[in-house]
Amino acid sequence: MVQVAILGATGYTALELIKILLRHPGAKITALTTRQEGSPPIHTIHQSLYGRLDLKCEDLTPAQVAQRAEVVFCCLPHVASMEAVPTLLAGGAKVIDLSADYRLNDPLVYEKWYGHKHSDPGRLATTVYGLPELFAERIPGQSLIANPGCYTSASILALAPLLSRGWIEPSGIVIDAKSGVSGAGRTPKLNTLFSECNEAMSAYSVGNKHRHLPEIEQVLSQATGHGVEAIFTPHLVPMDRGIIATIYARLTRSATDAELIAAVREFYAGKPFVRVVDHLPSTKDSAFTNFCDITVRQARGQAIIISCLDNLIKGAAGVAAQNFNLLCGFPETTGLL
Amino acid sequence: MVQVAILGATGYTALELIKILLRHPGAKITALTTRQEGSPPIHTIHQSLYGRLDLKCEDLTPAQVAQRAEVVFCCLPHVASMEAVPTLLAGGAKVIDLSADYRLNDPLVYEKWYGHKHSDPGRLATTVYGLPELFAERIPGQSLIANPGCYTSASILALAPLLSRGWIEPSGIVIDAKSGVSGAGRTPKLNTLFSECNEAMSAYSVGNKHRHLPEIEQVLSQATGHGVEAIFTPHLVPMDRGIIATIYARLTRSATDAELIAAVREFYAGKPFVRVVDHLPSTKDSAFTNFCDITVRQARGQAIIISCLDNLIKGAAGVAAQNFNLLCGFPETTGLL
Amino acid sequence: MVQVAILGATGYTALELIKILLRHPGAKITALTTRQEGSPPIHTIHQSLYGRLDLKCEDLTPAQVAQRAEVVFCCLPHVASMEAVPTLLAGGAKVIDLSADYRLNDPLVYEKWYGHKHSDPGRLATTVYGLPELFAERIPGQSLIANPGCYTSASILALAPLLSRGWIEPSGIVIDAKSGVSGAGRTPKLNTLFSECNEAMSAYSVGNKHRHLPEIEQVLSQATGHGVEAIFTPHLVPMDRGIIATIYARLTRSATDAELIAAVREFYAGKPFVRVVDHLPSTKDSAFTNFCDITVRQARGQAIIISCLDNLIKGAAGVAAQNFNLLCGFPETTGLL
Amino acid sequence: MVQVAILGATGYTALELIKILLRHPGAKITALTTRQEGSPPIHTIHQSLYGRLDLKCEDLTPAQVAQRAEVVFCCLPHVASMEAVPTLLAGGAKVIDLSADYRLNDPLVYEKWYGHKHSDPGRLATTVYGLPELFAERIPGQSLIANPGCYTSASILALAPLLSRGWIEPSGIVIDAKSGVSGAGRTPKLNTLFSECNEAMSAYSVGNKHRHLPEIEQVLSQATGHGVEAIFTPHLVPMDRGIIATIYARLTRSATDAELIAAVREFYAGKPFVRVVDHLPSTKDSAFTNFCDITVRQARGQAIIISCLDNLIKGAAGVAAQNFNLLCGFPETTGLL
Repeated sequence: MVQVAILGATGYTALELIKILLRHPGAKITALTTRQEGSPPIHTIHQSLYGRLDLKCEDLTPAQVAQRAEVVFCCLPHVASMEAVPTLLAGGAKVIDLSADYRLNDPLVYEKWYGHKHSDPGRLATTVYGLPELFAERIPGQSLIANPGCYTSASILALAPLLSRGWIEPSGIVIDAKSGVSGAGRTPKLNTLFSECNEAMSAYSVGNKHRHLPEIEQVLSQATGHGVEAIFTPHLVPMDRGIIATIYARLTRSATDAELIAAVREFYAGKPFVRVVDHLPSTKDSAFTNFCDITVRQARGQAIIISCLDNLIKGAAGVAAQNFNLLCGFPETTGLL
Repeated sequence: MVQVAILGATGYTALELIKILLRHPGAKITALTTRQEGSPPIHTIHQSLYGRLDLKCEDLTPAQVAQRAEVVFCCLPHVASMEAVPTLLAGGAKVIDLSADYRLNDPLVYEKWYGHKHSDPGRLATTVYGLPELFAERIPGQSLIANPGCYTSASILALAPLLSRGWIEPSGIVIDAKSGVSGAGRTPKLNTLFSECNEAMSAYSVGNKHRHLPEIEQVLSQATGHGVEAIFTPHLVPMDRGIIATIYARLTRSATDAELIAAVREFYAGKPFVRVVDHLPSTKDSAFTNFCDITVRQARGQAIIISCLDNLIKGAAGVAAQNFNLLCGFPETTGLL
Repeated sequence: MVQVAILGATGYTALELIKILLRHPGAKITALTTRQEGSPPIHTIHQSLYGRLDLKCEDLTPAQVAQRAEVVFCCLPHVASMEAVPTLLAGGAKVIDLSADYRLNDPLVYEKWYGHKHSDPGRLATTVYGLPELFAERIPGQSLIANPGCYTSASILALAPLLSRGWIEPSGIVIDAKSGVSGAGRTPKLNTLFSECNEAMSAYSVGNKHRHLPEIEQVLSQATGHGVEAIFTPHLVPMDRGIIATIYARLTRSATDAELIAAVREFYAGKPFVRVVDHLPSTKDSAFTNFCDITVRQARGQAIIISCLDNLIKGAAGVAAQNFNLLCGFPETTGLL
Repeated sequence: MVQVAILGATGYTALELIKILLRHPGAKITALTTRQEGSPPIHTIHQSLYGRLDLKCEDLTPAQVAQRAEVVFCCLPHVASMEAVPTLLAGGAKVIDLSADYRLNDPLVYEKWYGHKHSDPGRLATTVYGLPELFAERIPGQSLIANPGCYTSASILALAPLLSRGWIEPSGIVIDAKSGVSGAGRTPKLNTLFSECNEAMSAYSVGNKHRHLPEIEQVLSQATGHGVEAIFTPHLVPMDRGIIATIYARLTRSATDAELIAAVREFYAGKPFVRVVDHLPSTKDSAFTNFCDITVRQARGQAIIISCLDNLIKGAAGVAAQNFNLLCGFPETTGLL
């Protein structure tokens, strides 16, 4: 049994991760942390865990955590994460970091988008981006994995196949993405109150202001060899979970719907968590699962790619468990079907 | 008091229309129709009308309706509408048709998209399209108004200003539109069941298969003089009402966000129901109102136009009442603020 | 035109009140207050008011407000309200207080339930409780009206008719009430986040711990002459607005459903905002209206009374406007249909 | 591997059952039936199963099904179920019947509530009611299990402990129950459309008209030896899944909240799927799980018992799998945690 810890256990992603790990035959949760005082039992923070996990949420230092666990899932906010990771690694733990702190390779790009100087810039260039569908072979043997963002996974998985083939142009891509509200986290804010979000749909960060854009472009450029330029518009949808990205890209050749779908399907042959479907997927099909559902249509010389996933699972906790499996030598799907 | 009738009073649009007309100081509802037998009181069909309207829903012929009303709102489905309208007009009534039957000018285009030969093709070329922000001056004196579709109004109002100025290219436009479920009507179907739509978002008619596309292109081309070509993808959102259209168009010149907003604002100066806003609107801001909220941002040479309206009000019943006001000489905002 | 002000204009009730007053032919809003700095335009706080009300939200003292308005709607939280009301009254304004501060007659009961010593106890015994269906004749001529709570109005209106007739026992009453989330206010809290409330239903204050209970019992006892004892359990429902109270009371006589409904209907004859219906009402029927819908069934010697209203309208802002009409001599329904 | 079949595989309960069985290490799904023609692949009926189950949904006779499976889950509507069960049993299959057809012991009671003469009355008196928390020891060795209703399980599990102890009176019990919309099934009907249910809460079958009432009373009377008489009011809540029952019963003795909770907790000692909690549970805590969460409070001589479960899992498919485990000798929790 691999002993695992979760740093920052009070959020929605951590809750999903705990649920996955409780069903995982090879993982044992040994530590959960919070900055709240008094070491509250985890079921007082997440009522749904009552009777399922008898563990306290403690205010532990990274060094203490590294002594208790072989693998640490870091669910801290950005900045807090890069302050903890070096100590975790120095303590001998392997780290799957769910924050954005180690996703971007260039510390200047990080500073531009996150407004903080990176405190651990030396690791940026070499940290593996934990999107197993593209980078599975690089993950075993790593000590630090940068777990992808939710919008980014939905976007990258949708675009990588046709970009790699050169069937779509890498510039002028439009990513119109819609997410359930859990993606906005569990900290009380006016704009995520029920009475604000319910019966409401709105765009935010319009005009390429969202931090997932440089991540999408960096990873797609690396994975496909094409310098990608996109316009990315996220929206908030009145539902708990699920992302649907509707993506528009100019075709470089004429192709039928069936040819486009076949090309994407071929790309993901043997990948257990990408389902290339003929029908139009709903976010509900992949909710509470680690699947990403993708299909394609074309019109007027453009490919319209639809990509759905559960932002908390395939977009965060599920892919983290997938990375955990690859890191520890478990079959990729363990605990995830 | 203008005597008005509603043909097809059992749907959601008819309900909203009844509520608006009940608050309208110059309208009196004199007939409601349904194909249901037994002349049920309207409040047994729409419980919310209990005590507010003491009228039966009757199985009347168009000729009978024309005898009872000066203005008829036709809320029938397409095909049914074009079978009733000629009789209504012959009976002396003015007609505001909320179906799609008189929106397209070309009977062949109608037949292609709706799968039926048009039975009243002679009126198509001359019927005024009832979008008052563009065509207000043509409405008084008409006997038949084609009330616009919901997606179409959101899209046309968003695009008309920058297209008219020539600031965006008329081709390659992407309209990514999202609608609340009431837009799908009140007939029981699997895909509009609560348990199918709730906690779910999905695209439909992907690949330019939605019937509002030819309407958008026809009206924009007529209004702006540019032959518009767009890709239009509608989505279903788990909320009752509201449309948000996120529209991408290549700019022909460089312009700041403020300049783009100013251009749109100037276009709608004096129009009471279009609010050009600096902030990013939510569908909730215009829900239950006749407003359309529009803003613009730019990135990488594209304008990103956001347009929100209530699909049942500004997208259907509200604009119908606006057309009624213009047709009958009431101030445009009567009953609508 | 009566000049009116709203103290505490940033919440959901204030927003509904503003919308009602904007449609009211006899009211003009002259002041809105907030403790936020910088006098923000009201449309930056409530985006839906853009273009509809050009007024700033100012940090005014009660004395300043009293100079600007003849009638003040006090939407402050409890305690804050009783600190402002005496000054408003001294300044010559009439006050409709939407907080709980003047609803309970006994300062000791207030202190027990609200945890604060009442700072204006002298007014408690004589302040009129603003539930027009029971106390309309006492309202004209008052300078201070205590606007009822939302759960209380739903419960009192449901129980008053059969209690007054002596058809149900005043003890052992069970009030199982369910409310939309807007009733919990607009201050960001964990338990009103979308991701906590959505797809979730829960009871709270179980075991007669909710502050609306003493209000219900006091008013019903005064209105019917019977010392009422109830068990009251509120629940949070994943919807914006609406309360449904399902109330169980032992019948003192045998009666059919029709007789029970007839008795309630007779009680409310001539009251424009209570609709006694034969069907089972949904909260959606009265949402966005000032109606309270009531019906009754019986089984095994108990009456089961169903009562629905919009917590923000008939449960707060709408009844406040109703009180305003009675206070100022307008017809009771002005601005409310 | 036990070969299992599902009769009536197109509904929501069947979908949940399939998902549970796919994770069950000892079950293999060998047949799925529907009355639809053409043997559609199951993933065309339930898109979420794409890539997870490669099986067609066939129009098989009960005799054919009995040849393919050792255990048959019968998800047919009532009446259809009792027409299939005798053939399934005659064919040698064990049957877990999820309909209401074998729950009531008395064919006259069945006929009164379901409006059909029972066609297989001889089995009614002896069929075991599959609520494992009360009847686990009777289940192994059976060939037919009557799987409980959703409201009934929530109600019975809540009431059994205090009734058994004699701490609450068996008459005058009020069960106010609220359910997510999936409980109403997947057949398109007006009252389960999204636009009817969303933002709406309503009671139905008010006045003891719901078919789960006789089931609740029969089972509780048998399990506790007290002739139970209740008033039962179900409500529809705008959420997918979850039931919360708020139950009121007169205490026969005085007891604190802690004593009441302790009594219930003792009753369920060692039962893995009932969580007796000190906090107030939300339906969300048990959603997507096989847990039933229960707590108690008291006020004015009444116990207020709160009981939450997922109507599709613990209220249907999950408890069916629990019965399957007991029937086949698997540990009770197999595939369910």
